[in-house]
Amino acid sequence: MRVVVPFAATAPKTRLSPVLSPAERSRVAEAMLADVLTTLTETGHEATILATTPVDLEEYDIDPDVLERVSVAVDERPLTEAVNARLGTDDPVAVVMADLALATPAALERLFETEADVAIAPGRGSGTNALVVRHPEFRVDYHGTSYLDHRERAQDVGASLETVDSFRLATDIDEPADLVEVLVHGRDDARAPAVLRECGFELTETDGRVTVSRRESNPSK
Amino acid sequence: MRVVVPFAATAPKTRLSPVLSPAERSRVAEAMLADVLTTLTETGHEATILATTPVDLEEYDIDPDVLERVSVAVDERPLTEAVNARLGTDDPVAVVMADLALATPAALERLFETEADVAIAPGRGSGTNALVVRHPEFRVDYHGTSYLDHRERAQDVGASLETVDSFRLATDIDEPADLVEVLVHGRDDARAPAVLRECGFELTETDGRVTVSRRESNPSK
Repeated sequence: MRVVVPFAATAPKTRLSPVLSPAERSRVAEAMLADVLTTLTETGHEATILATTPVDLEEYDIDPDVLERVSVAVDERPLTEAVNARLGTDDPVAVVMADLALATPAALERLFETEADVAIAPGRGSGTNALVVRHPEFRVDYHGTSYLDHRERAQDVGASLETVDSFRLATDIDEPADLVEVLVHGRDDARAPAVLRECGFELTETDGRVTVSRRESNPSK
Repeated sequence: MRVVVPFAATAPKTRLSPVLSPAERSRVAEAMLADVLTTLTETGHEATILATTPVDLEEYDIDPDVLERVSVAVDERPLTEAVNARLGTDDPVAVVMADLALATPAALERLFETEADVAIAPGRGSGTNALVVRHPEFRVDYHGTSYLDHRERAQDVGASLETVDSFRLATDIDEPADLVEVLVHGRDDARAPAVLRECGFELTETDGRVTVSRRESNPSK
């Protein structure tokens, strides 16, 4: 199955700006991309990064054997159009977001092993974090309530639909509160939790609720 | 398997106070409890509500055939102590929170069908939204990073551990932003989405992000 990984290479993760500088946001985004690609490779699939601008993967911290199975396609169009340009074929296509820092091979396999014409792993707020399309007439629209909209579109084109119930795939890392999940559930050898810890983030408890806090930045970084 | 459903009957869901009055919060909490009990009954299990004060289930909107399979135990102690008083037996015990408004029979069965000594469905922020305990020495501590703490405690008592990866079980309804999930993923015949809609909540889109908004309250309510 072809797996497409959309990646906004320029000024990524702006909603993390309250807690991370632009350079740090790029570093976190690249670490999450590297983690997602590594996880995808473990499922036995090859991935195509659908990047908004050219990216030099050699500069990212990605294992050589993962890099071998990854290609880059540059498409400057908005996400929805760029993804739709890859659909419309008889071959199944998976689309997995680059910020699914909690993804594991097992979670992705539950998605890939579905049999429905359209299988969706929803994200919070009615997002579509990952999906598999096995119907030539189905098209995506990532704006707004995309999970609900994709359900409706599947019905409109007569495609069967399955929803994959996964916390790991539902958790895209967009906002400061999401960083907690990276520190709690990130895999031991993953890059994103390591980068966050290097940036000084750690779990803290306030009034019985768990958040992240940041130590004074290390000036040497 | 015995299933315990802790329920704070007095002043529930205070973190929803920015958008719901105390009476409405009680109504939403009771609707979620009814939904959870209905779902549990569909899995074939009987439930014991572990309530902080006596509750009259007859006053809640619960189907009679569900009510038949539900009992109430009153325990005024804090959550952790009240739950631990039900553990320590050789029989497996499940603990399912009353605010898992998105729970489905399939999601709960994935938890119940585990075989590990301790199986946890984590919630966001390192919470423990549902768990099954099959080890007489394991005890809970719901304070703070309970998911991480429960993992550690399982290891300490030599209990095997499994984590259940479910968005539906990870989504407890605590804060206004969580209401989006009830409206998007609540089952068609569920009470909680119906109560929220009666309160005037609906999905709205702002800058491509989905939230809930509330229409002017109906003065007749």
